[in-house]
Amino acid sequence: MDFKTRHFIFGGDYNPEQWDDREDILEEDIRLMKKANINEVTLGVFAWAKEEPSEGQYDLSWLRKRVDILYENGIETILSTPSGARPHWLADKYPEVLRVDESRHKDLFGERHNHCYTSPVYREKVWQINHKLAEEFRHHPGIKAWHISNEYGGECHCPLCQQAFRNYLSEKFEGNIEKLNHAWWTAFWSKTYTSFDQIESPSSRGERSIFGLYLEWKRFVTKQTGEFIKNEKAAIRDAGAMQPVTINMMYEFDGLNYAKLTKYIDVASWDSYPEWFGHSDTDAALSHAMYHDFIRALKNKPFLLMESCPTATNWQPVSKLKKPGIVKAAGLSAVAHGADSVQYFQIRQGRGSFEKFHGAVIDHYGKEDTRVFREVSDTGSTLKDISKIAGAKTHAKVALIHDVENRWAMEKSAGPRNCGLGYYDAVMKAYKGIKAAGLDVDVVSMDHELSDYKLIVCPMLYMLRNGVEEKLRAHVKGGGILIMTYWSGIVDENDLCYLGGTPFGLMDVLGLRSEEIDSLTDEEENEMCPVSDNALGITKSYKARKLCDLVVLDTAKTLMEYGKDWYAKRPALCENDFGKGKAYYICADADEDFYLDVIPAITKRHRIKGLVSNLPKELDVCSREKDDTRYVFVSNFTGEEKKISLPKGAKVVLGNNDGVIDPISTLIFEESISSDS
Amino acid sequence: MDFKTRHFIFGGDYNPEQWDDREDILEEDIRLMKKANINEVTLGVFAWAKEEPSEGQYDLSWLRKRVDILYENGIETILSTPSGARPHWLADKYPEVLRVDESRHKDLFGERHNHCYTSPVYREKVWQINHKLAEEFRHHPGIKAWHISNEYGGECHCPLCQQAFRNYLSEKFEGNIEKLNHAWWTAFWSKTYTSFDQIESPSSRGERSIFGLYLEWKRFVTKQTGEFIKNEKAAIRDAGAMQPVTINMMYEFDGLNYAKLTKYIDVASWDSYPEWFGHSDTDAALSHAMYHDFIRALKNKPFLLMESCPTATNWQPVSKLKKPGIVKAAGLSAVAHGADSVQYFQIRQGRGSFEKFHGAVIDHYGKEDTRVFREVSDTGSTLKDISKIAGAKTHAKVALIHDVENRWAMEKSAGPRNCGLGYYDAVMKAYKGIKAAGLDVDVVSMDHELSDYKLIVCPMLYMLRNGVEEKLRAHVKGGGILIMTYWSGIVDENDLCYLGGTPFGLMDVLGLRSEEIDSLTDEEENEMCPVSDNALGITKSYKARKLCDLVVLDTAKTLMEYGKDWYAKRPALCENDFGKGKAYYICADADEDFYLDVIPAITKRHRIKGLVSNLPKELDVCSREKDDTRYVFVSNFTGEEKKISLPKGAKVVLGNNDGVIDPISTLIFEESISSDS
Amino acid sequence: MDFKTRHFIFGGDYNPEQWDDREDILEEDIRLMKKANINEVTLGVFAWAKEEPSEGQYDLSWLRKRVDILYENGIETILSTPSGARPHWLADKYPEVLRVDESRHKDLFGERHNHCYTSPVYREKVWQINHKLAEEFRHHPGIKAWHISNEYGGECHCPLCQQAFRNYLSEKFEGNIEKLNHAWWTAFWSKTYTSFDQIESPSSRGERSIFGLYLEWKRFVTKQTGEFIKNEKAAIRDAGAMQPVTINMMYEFDGLNYAKLTKYIDVASWDSYPEWFGHSDTDAALSHAMYHDFIRALKNKPFLLMESCPTATNWQPVSKLKKPGIVKAAGLSAVAHGADSVQYFQIRQGRGSFEKFHGAVIDHYGKEDTRVFREVSDTGSTLKDISKIAGAKTHAKVALIHDVENRWAMEKSAGPRNCGLGYYDAVMKAYKGIKAAGLDVDVVSMDHELSDYKLIVCPMLYMLRNGVEEKLRAHVKGGGILIMTYWSGIVDENDLCYLGGTPFGLMDVLGLRSEEIDSLTDEEENEMCPVSDNALGITKSYKARKLCDLVVLDTAKTLMEYGKDWYAKRPALCENDFGKGKAYYICADADEDFYLDVIPAITKRHRIKGLVSNLPKELDVCSREKDDTRYVFVSNFTGEEKKISLPKGAKVVLGNNDGVIDPISTLIFEESISSDS
Repeated sequence: MDFKTRHFIFGGDYNPEQWDDREDILEEDIRLMKKANINEVTLGVFAWAKEEPSEGQYDLSWLRKRVDILYENGIETILSTPSGARPHWLADKYPEVLRVDESRHKDLFGERHNHCYTSPVYREKVWQINHKLAEEFRHHPGIKAWHISNEYGGECHCPLCQQAFRNYLSEKFEGNIEKLNHAWWTAFWSKTYTSFDQIESPSSRGERSIFGLYLEWKRFVTKQTGEFIKNEKAAIRDAGAMQPVTINMMYEFDGLNYAKLTKYIDVASWDSYPEWFGHSDTDAALSHAMYHDFIRALKNKPFLLMESCPTATNWQPVSKLKKPGIVKAAGLSAVAHGADSVQYFQIRQGRGSFEKFHGAVIDHYGKEDTRVFREVSDTGSTLKDISKIAGAKTHAKVALIHDVENRWAMEKSAGPRNCGLGYYDAVMKAYKGIKAAGLDVDVVSMDHELSDYKLIVCPMLYMLRNGVEEKLRAHVKGGGILIMTYWSGIVDENDLCYLGGTPFGLMDVLGLRSEEIDSLTDEEENEMCPVSDNALGITKSYKARKLCDLVVLDTAKTLMEYGKDWYAKRPALCENDFGKGKAYYICADADEDFYLDVIPAITKRHRIKGLVSNLPKELDVCSREKDDTRYVFVSNFTGEEKKISLPKGAKVVLGNNDGVIDPISTLIFEESISSDS
Repeated sequence: MDFKTRHFIFGGDYNPEQWDDREDILEEDIRLMKKANINEVTLGVFAWAKEEPSEGQYDLSWLRKRVDILYENGIETILSTPSGARPHWLADKYPEVLRVDESRHKDLFGERHNHCYTSPVYREKVWQINHKLAEEFRHHPGIKAWHISNEYGGECHCPLCQQAFRNYLSEKFEGNIEKLNHAWWTAFWSKTYTSFDQIESPSSRGERSIFGLYLEWKRFVTKQTGEFIKNEKAAIRDAGAMQPVTINMMYEFDGLNYAKLTKYIDVASWDSYPEWFGHSDTDAALSHAMYHDFIRALKNKPFLLMESCPTATNWQPVSKLKKPGIVKAAGLSAVAHGADSVQYFQIRQGRGSFEKFHGAVIDHYGKEDTRVFREVSDTGSTLKDISKIAGAKTHAKVALIHDVENRWAMEKSAGPRNCGLGYYDAVMKAYKGIKAAGLDVDVVSMDHELSDYKLIVCPMLYMLRNGVEEKLRAHVKGGGILIMTYWSGIVDENDLCYLGGTPFGLMDVLGLRSEEIDSLTDEEENEMCPVSDNALGITKSYKARKLCDLVVLDTAKTLMEYGKDWYAKRPALCENDFGKGKAYYICADADEDFYLDVIPAITKRHRIKGLVSNLPKELDVCSREKDDTRYVFVSNFTGEEKKISLPKGAKVVLGNNDGVIDPISTLIFEESISSDS
Repeated sequence: MDFKTRHFIFGGDYNPEQWDDREDILEEDIRLMKKANINEVTLGVFAWAKEEPSEGQYDLSWLRKRVDILYENGIETILSTPSGARPHWLADKYPEVLRVDESRHKDLFGERHNHCYTSPVYREKVWQINHKLAEEFRHHPGIKAWHISNEYGGECHCPLCQQAFRNYLSEKFEGNIEKLNHAWWTAFWSKTYTSFDQIESPSSRGERSIFGLYLEWKRFVTKQTGEFIKNEKAAIRDAGAMQPVTINMMYEFDGLNYAKLTKYIDVASWDSYPEWFGHSDTDAALSHAMYHDFIRALKNKPFLLMESCPTATNWQPVSKLKKPGIVKAAGLSAVAHGADSVQYFQIRQGRGSFEKFHGAVIDHYGKEDTRVFREVSDTGSTLKDISKIAGAKTHAKVALIHDVENRWAMEKSAGPRNCGLGYYDAVMKAYKGIKAAGLDVDVVSMDHELSDYKLIVCPMLYMLRNGVEEKLRAHVKGGGILIMTYWSGIVDENDLCYLGGTPFGLMDVLGLRSEEIDSLTDEEENEMCPVSDNALGITKSYKARKLCDLVVLDTAKTLMEYGKDWYAKRPALCENDFGKGKAYYICADADEDFYLDVIPAITKRHRIKGLVSNLPKELDVCSREKDDTRYVFVSNFTGEEKKISLPKGAKVVLGNNDGVIDPISTLIFEESISSDS
């Protein structure tokens, strides 16, 4: 059931059930979609009340009719299951499907994304509606894929979930409560459990200081969500529908461990809504570029951009219009990072309720003479022009570890900086450094296969899990380059501190030991100053903030040192030879410019070559490969013209032939892979 | 039952029940009140526990005695019903009277203003005590009026209210749930109702995204409160008491639609507590001046200033003392805008509990040699001097639309600027512009009769309800001037978006269409720059913030254009001829100085004449008319002397004969109405 | 049962129950403790689950073994009762022991410090475990003292507590509900109670505006906690254990009135965790120095520093490392102010859960070659060197009133500055002024015996209780010096305002009356300017903020006057002769520099001599006396060298003989008491 496409999918969410008394609008929408080069719609998201108006009474005729007519007009459908919001009758009759919050209050009916994932009734009802949908559409040629539910998230603390959580724990700790007590260090504050039955999920009214409990609860929520997805997919397959399956994920969402859900789906997809305000357009684009690289790496193949906005959203603090050019450049940036689609929420703007002011391809005015419609159409036209790239894959030499369990553990723990550790920022800064070196990068969890990379970057690898320290050791020993930072190797998978020195298992690889770590207030800063004649040729000093690790060197050498405070002159950046490779240790939370300079210096030193030589600042360069061709995308989100030197033999696919990239635009060139060094 | 007075009422809340063991204090209070020129007290607010100490046991003798003795001393009484706070026994015996909050938790006994408005028991008990009070005082010559309850507000979500809400909806939507589903756009997120019985009021634990539900809930709360008031008043009338009835309203309170409650009362009154800190005294005064004009326009006749503070309040973040002169100037400002009373909370300061540090005429020290007592006495003396003005009416040529349903809808909706739309600020800025033109103004809801105004100003008229677009169209067609702004004509009364272009129904009147609207962060701004030789003679540029509308012109002409961003040079201020009139459209959230300059430029262009020519900045000029005389009030809240040119034939009633107005003081002159141009 | 020690206690919390499977760690810990000069551990804190694993099954053998082995190695034990956190089985079987919060929701099991203090079951279970512990250790020579529970705090609103609260009130008001109604001024807002049964504790869902109710609730919580302590101690004594008893208190904790709990304990102790960030080290040290002086004065004898941190904590917003020298200087500062111990939390760092990153003497690394271990050992060594000082007492000439009931009443009341009155800051500024004069000071409640002081300083003595005004009057009359401030003498013990003028009972002593008080926004300030030739020789002006009292003078003289606003030139600092003494009145919230200058000017004028003459700024000087010797401690927390003139005949005990005090260090000299003037 691999997802395959020979062109880029271009379309988005469409909710004709909101206009079912308006045949004229359906007709007009199809006319406008075709004009906009749209070749896909996502149907059925939140349509349960329309599909099953009362228990067991199904009505899919309206949906069938629309899938048919759209297909006749050249528009394929990604069909959603409706479990993201249940009909009223379901909650009325089976209150167990309503969530209970952490304070143990049950929800009233309302909103969306708020069912109990454990409820057997809810799973059964979802199975039934999914089965009906799949029966109806299993052989329909217009169905491109299944989109299960919508933006999974949240948690339920009802008695059914409590019991499932206890069962999960009992299984994990092999029925041995002493194992759990040791792992969670419950001797502290007299919290020793004598039975699994005593366990309750974390609650502001109950237990909130056992971080092992918290971690397992988060893992349980992911596991339970995964089983829910599995049930949804099984219903579809059981009915004989074999189209590929996806779920749509969310930016920087840490409620679930997406890496654990990947096995349930055939293709990854996500919803990208950058904040085009409050920072530069380049920063807005790069933050989501990193997430593209994370989503793509989940399955190591092209993904879908399931949702994006053709202009302002309505749920951010300010609904900033997308300035001219952004719609197209952002769409192409997704493609550059591996997307095989550009999709919008939504095709036609709803008239009422929560999302009535969310940007849409066709707005309340309803005609095509709008700036937004023109920009969307132009994007679709460009995707047609480059359709040969669809399906091409990304091959990265660099891995950047971004691990959500690590984040859960680090951010929940008390200390060393409760006002903010800056984990996600640290990953982002490292990402920008790698991009400044002109390299493709896979953003992955620590469980990912790491053996094929030349460089592995591990910001704040607080938790070491599943032997990752052994993988990193082998990587360096075998000749790989490793970059680690402060606040790494501190705890095991249960958030239990390693004894005997940190970073655990890597002190010899790094040639040092962390003795203590200082925390800075928001107003404080230190400096990282180069030692003379350092091997990286660093000559500038950089600011350090938040956290400063004080290390004791064994075999490591100092490249930079602190500039201030009582630990001035102690090491701030170190390197160490280990086996055939080299390990770097960044001791403090350096500012972005440090990463922008130092990571390229490291890749240059170790001859890890970027896609474009002499890359101007602020450009994002990516590649996709297909057969013997490499397609290189260079995105310019600045307001200025930029120029790159095209490699010899390169052929421009999109943009100016002289390598000049206009403001807010994209250049694509292709080159033969065999020409690589 | 019209409210009539031949002198200004001067007094305020008095709570002798707090001192019922102190005959000496009652005597001393009367001595001090007389010395302070006080001619009225408000009695009985929150006195239920004293009036009915146990169920059915009434004791009004203490109250009768006080009303009598005060009357003998020349002090009239406004008598309050006690429903603002119930006695303990009532909640103990009938828990249904206690409110349930939106999260569905029932209150414990405590505080005030927290009964269920729907509870039949509470209505019955209120009827009984009101009836008893009215029987006792129906013929008493000292009773000037009835003050029903106190500062109505808040809401209850108990089962009784839920059922009443469902009944209200069923009636409104004629028992047709499909009508409701369409109006609330419930196809979105699968929220379709199949029965009115499924409806629950909005809740943080349930439904919070259906804005139609939210709007109807707010309307229901107003309706339920209105019926509660009706019941209170009916008890009074049923007992044969025929004195006029009022309720005291609150500044910028958006929990109720006051315009809908006006029909239940004979005279409007409100409680004015300006914030004399954090901004200039002029701004503090003008913000409440606008509310005076709102309260007066509710019934188009003089109102009562039911409460104000003779010095610092105790519930604001800082209890700023009123600087010398403010007490008198603020009292006269209320009179200038149409008040027939100046009343304080409170005459004698309570000794304990929540309001013990609220400013009072007689404080804990208890004697007359205080600054506050002197300033109050002086204010009373001045009111005596100008008593001929009491009862005079205001005749405004300008209407400013301030509509609370519009506010509910706009501020609850998601987008286009969730961090703040600035509706109230926009109304305030328009108000200041009108005042800078030296004009009286009625501040009214969109349901108000609009046919007699020369100029109608409509800031952010997001919702168009009850055909207001037709009224505005007729106004302009017939020769009137209209000023509209960005974010207007977007939704109907159900918060359902108008299709086909906005401002709905007024695109031809304005000669333009709004294509899209940009939202700015708090740090951003744009500019509004005059086009050369514009018809208003504008030469300055002004800052624009928050929202910038991008319009497409039809017949309109550009007076100003944007100065920055990608939409520089697009229109920022437009004018359009329509019928015999003219319509202006302000595209962006301009700063106050824009309004201070542009509204006077518009009124001057169209010869809508102010009350004083060449009015110096920062003065507030108002008029009241009686018989053939116009009384013009000029309030100076600045720290500097100001001078106006008195019209020919004007006679100074208060202040300097040369037109000089001292810092923090008021000048009043009279002129013959027949001398008008 | 007086607490006596011939050397300084040096050690801290030790939790071997977290490592009970690691004999090697116990051995290693003892080796390291001895190396660090540790002579004490605190055992058993939160060890209930280990001591009584199931109901009635006690296991103290592990504890006995550890107490024994430690004692054999020269390490004494302070033994804790375990009531700070109960085992799971206790809450499972007896849910009444779980707290109910103010919104009337019962806790789930979890956290710590959250039992119902009223529950007879909990008291009984605590009695039993305490009794067992005491039986086991009553004759053990290694038990130095009992540490009851841990950091008492919090409150419970369960039905048992409600009933106990009603009983408490009925007793306090002699069964007379009218007395309560008058005291709480319930005639206001119809809150009159007709029975004690109607009373509920304050609640965000119920009553929150009766400040008398709030005050009595706070008093009840202290009383109930006291009775709980009494029960704990009685169990110990009943079992025949006669070692002294303590509870560990907390910095600036206002949940309990510690002054009322002192009678239940034999020696005071507390946990000191200064914030060594966000302000200067001197300020961090002085803020806790004040609390040392408060804790010591509770029993007028040496106290124990029960907990402190050898490096960064993990629960503050930033976990700042203690810079070199701070550990020792902070420990010696506690000793300077009267501590007979320096103890740490914790000896060995726990591996998991909430406090795993809290600083410890032995950290996860586990060896002695760390900076922290070296600094701790050095501190222990110094304490050995000065052990002759242990047990010496402090004799202060100055009392500073810091009264928690005063704080409760003032901060809960509405007005005059709800955004912050700054009571604690005002006390702190006065404290710094006294320290700048080089004087020892007792920080005491207004109930403290005040007859032996030369100077009494009373910042913001809002509440006058138990005749304190008579004590202050007698003090001045007899020749004492009194310093009072704005916002004093306002209410009685029920928070009922005094009538007839304020400061109540002291207007003649101060020679003035407060007429009104102005409140300033955070952005505003006024000035206090010296009048020429004032008796204190003040020549500088100082800023005033927050509150400015406007006084009317009777016999007082003006020393300073306001510099701005409409009350410029009115008095800002006054003095008055009364009897043989003198009273000063500070009218406004002056900045710290005012106190640093003016209090020394006052003590100098009245010849109240400091411990060191010509004391350099920012040094903290204290004394302790034993037999005929006075030990004077001078603490320097600045980063600079300071020098004092050693008195003639002084002998340096610690530090440089020339009076030079190194940065972040302490000088101690001794002198003969008989040499005093």
